Amino acid sequence: MRAIDIIMKKRGTKVRDANGNQILASSTTLTKEEIKFLIDEYTAGRIPDYQMSAFTMAVYFNGMNFEETGALTDAMLHSGDVIELHGKDGLPENEIYVDKHSTGGVGDKISLPLAPIVAACGVMDPMMSGRALGHTGGTLDKLESIEGFNVNLTEEQFRAGIKKDGFAMMGQTPNVAPADKKMYALRDVTATVESVPLITSSILSKKVAEGADALVFDVKYGSGAFMKTIPDSEELATFLVKTAQAMGKKATAFMTAMNTPLGRMVGNFLEIEETVECLQGKGPADVMELTYALGAEMVLLAGKAESEEEARKMCEDAVSSGKALEIFLANVKTQGGNPEKLMAEIGKRRSQFHTQVLAEKDGYIKLDAFKTGLASVYLGVGRNKSDDKVCPDAGIIMHKKTGDCVKKGELILDVYGKDEACLPQAVKMLTEEALSYSETKPHSDQLIYKIIK
Amino acid sequence: MRAIDIIMKKRGTKVRDANGNQILASSTTLTKEEIKFLIDEYTAGRIPDYQMSAFTMAVYFNGMNFEETGALTDAMLHSGDVIELHGKDGLPENEIYVDKHSTGGVGDKISLPLAPIVAACGVMDPMMSGRALGHTGGTLDKLESIEGFNVNLTEEQFRAGIKKDGFAMMGQTPNVAPADKKMYALRDVTATVESVPLITSSILSKKVAEGADALVFDVKYGSGAFMKTIPDSEELATFLVKTAQAMGKKATAFMTAMNTPLGRMVGNFLEIEETVECLQGKGPADVMELTYALGAEMVLLAGKAESEEEARKMCEDAVSSGKALEIFLANVKTQGGNPEKLMAEIGKRRSQFHTQVLAEKDGYIKLDAFKTGLASVYLGVGRNKSDDKVCPDAGIIMHKKTGDCVKKGELILDVYGKDEACLPQAVKMLTEEALSYSETKPHSDQLIYKIIK
Repeated sequence: MRAIDIIMKKRGTKVRDANGNQILASSTTLTKEEIKFLIDEYTAGRIPDYQMSAFTMAVYFNGMNFEETGALTDAMLHSGDVIELHGKDGLPENEIYVDKHSTGGVGDKISLPLAPIVAACGVMDPMMSGRALGHTGGTLDKLESIEGFNVNLTEEQFRAGIKKDGFAMMGQTPNVAPADKKMYALRDVTATVESVPLITSSILSKKVAEGADALVFDVKYGSGAFMKTIPDSEELATFLVKTAQAMGKKATAFMTAMNTPLGRMVGNFLEIEETVECLQGKGPADVMELTYALGAEMVLLAGKAESEEEARKMCEDAVSSGKALEIFLANVKTQGGNPEKLMAEIGKRRSQFHTQVLAEKDGYIKLDAFKTGLASVYLGVGRNKSDDKVCPDAGIIMHKKTGDCVKKGELILDVYGKDEACLPQAVKMLTEEALSYSETKPHSDQLIYKIIK
Repeated sequence: MRAIDIIMKKRGTKVRDANGNQILASSTTLTKEEIKFLIDEYTAGRIPDYQMSAFTMAVYFNGMNFEETGALTDAMLHSGDVIELHGKDGLPENEIYVDKHSTGGVGDKISLPLAPIVAACGVMDPMMSGRALGHTGGTLDKLESIEGFNVNLTEEQFRAGIKKDGFAMMGQTPNVAPADKKMYALRDVTATVESVPLITSSILSKKVAEGADALVFDVKYGSGAFMKTIPDSEELATFLVKTAQAMGKKATAFMTAMNTPLGRMVGNFLEIEETVECLQGKGPADVMELTYALGAEMVLLAGKAESEEEARKMCEDAVSSGKALEIFLANVKTQGGNPEKLMAEIGKRRSQFHTQVLAEKDGYIKLDAFKTGLASVYLGVGRNKSDDKVCPDAGIIMHKKTGDCVKKGELILDVYGKDEACLPQAVKMLTEEALSYSETKPHSDQLIYKIIK
């Protein structure tokens, strides 16, 4: 096998039809073996970057079907560590381990209440999360705002946590899918990021490597999402589900709106606080709706309920009974935090660098997710570069949300910064770009647009 | 300017139309400045191979227009030495220097009689040629079969030769279009050879660097050609002409047939021999026809005649008067050969390793150009790798050609090898693959299919 032949096959060979027009003469569909060869040899350094970049550009143009994308994902995930859960360290052999993946948004803390809720329903969730980058926050940064919370688990600690609490929260180990790291760095400088099969394999290789048998995807669309439009988001959602299924996994994708932040809080500790509110049954309606919907699907995929209604009821009971909060706090303790101290900080821990945004006029407001996310980066919630430090106590409390009616002078936002200096720039972004007013109630998105199975 | 932005522009950005279908949102046409930046920085090693290969793959899919291809050619030719002729070393200032370029074929010795014929008509021809590779022969190898003939000229010797004899024959200097060498090597291993704009800029950058103001292209189609089909050949011919014109050059392309070898001889010294026959007015009809057609166009482009008829008459007179042969022999002497010794060898210099192919049955024959070319490589006429040595005295004399009727046992081919051992393999290729028989006269191609100006 030679790399050039695989590139040429994916590129396709053109011939002329009877009218002299060029048509594609050959199938560009690669075999499992060809894809595996390409990824294995590339990861080993025996196929050079210049062949891989020609290949990824050919994929940009000619695409990949679900089977090819599955083979690519499989080759990428096996380039590094794959966590085994079944029957290891006392974990059940025949369990269906389920995880959720979100394509990222602003105020998207769903993983935090979701994991203990489904754990309370008997689901076992190996949750591997990421960090904040660009305008979106990161679950690991939020967890680390809890004093002592350790996300750098060994595989053994990860399995022990799942066994004890039903879930564990960890960051990617350094050797998860090294082929993905290498390919992503190359795609980033060769204009081949925007390819749905390549995006799919990058996401999936890391999720499957963590040991999940079933996956629920939250694929966002809108200004604060990776995919801005519904059709692009639907294409990615379909690819994620069908590729995971082609790999023998169970999978469901929820297409959800991300034009305005989720919930009432954007920040690190602030989102922990909102998580506790959710687990106490008093979270914002949008966060509760999405958490229950994703949770019910996870419970169903794990085989813990017979119907969607039953699964949803189980999730609601997990909250109302207090069991989910109990499990959340147990996990905090397992991973090195102090549950009592955490609960004592709720509603009190705020950055001292504070200002407010008041309504400039009467009217209905709109709060843009992307611009709010950018403002939160200025405040120190997120990162511009992967080695920036985040501030645990910075963030934004939204007293009014898109669609709410305000009177001039009314409090809309509490704004907390990492220092005094960052506040004016963040407020300028919030008032001039994120916030807008209208005389009529703006159209509000349906939170869950579509479910793809 | 950044390479990634140029790659992304050529790749194009897709958006959705009202029906959700992906369409190209932006023009992928690059500016002169963008193309120059890319080539200059790549040649200097400041843009890495992996970005250039992604770029060439994007060009494979999205193409380039004539202006872009002209800008690419211009950037590539200025990456190295450009030979100046006008007013240098006593060459005329306002002359239109004209050269011919063939895309390569089997038995294609046209450059050899053509240069002295047009020189006899007053045309000044800076002829820079290549070597045999694959199934096609090379003008330099043919010339070097003349004892003492030196093709490694300095620029000064090249100009002096053109001044003295009206033309000079040289190989590419090592520093002609280094960007092309670097890009071609990369395209060869990244499946991006088959792109007409890239092929065009590769050919043109070297021809323009030799100092020609006007170019006549012989773009072949058929089994022995680089482009196998008429539409592909026409696309390349059009690109060569329109790109050269976009660069301010005069240009004409002849699309000519290459399904069977040109002339009656394939070899190195054998083709010198056939050249002398042509210059004596007794060459094969196909070689004479093509030489006169291309020659008349060169005479016209150089402004040495008013009409095609006049130009053609001048070429014919150059042969019948003996002036073209005289100039040919003068050039042999100028470049280090011995004209008397050469003339004495005509009809006599043959490899001692000899065999014949006789007709296996009665019928009309067909002789395939590609397979005959491959057989000639076995014999030592050409090369498989660029550092193979060629044999000056090997080759094939075709006593019968495509369309001729033979009787069983009649002599079709004389076959001369570099050694005894190579003969069986070459004969096997010739008898089993190159030669075929039919009861009815086969269709014969029109030699000149179309002229593109």
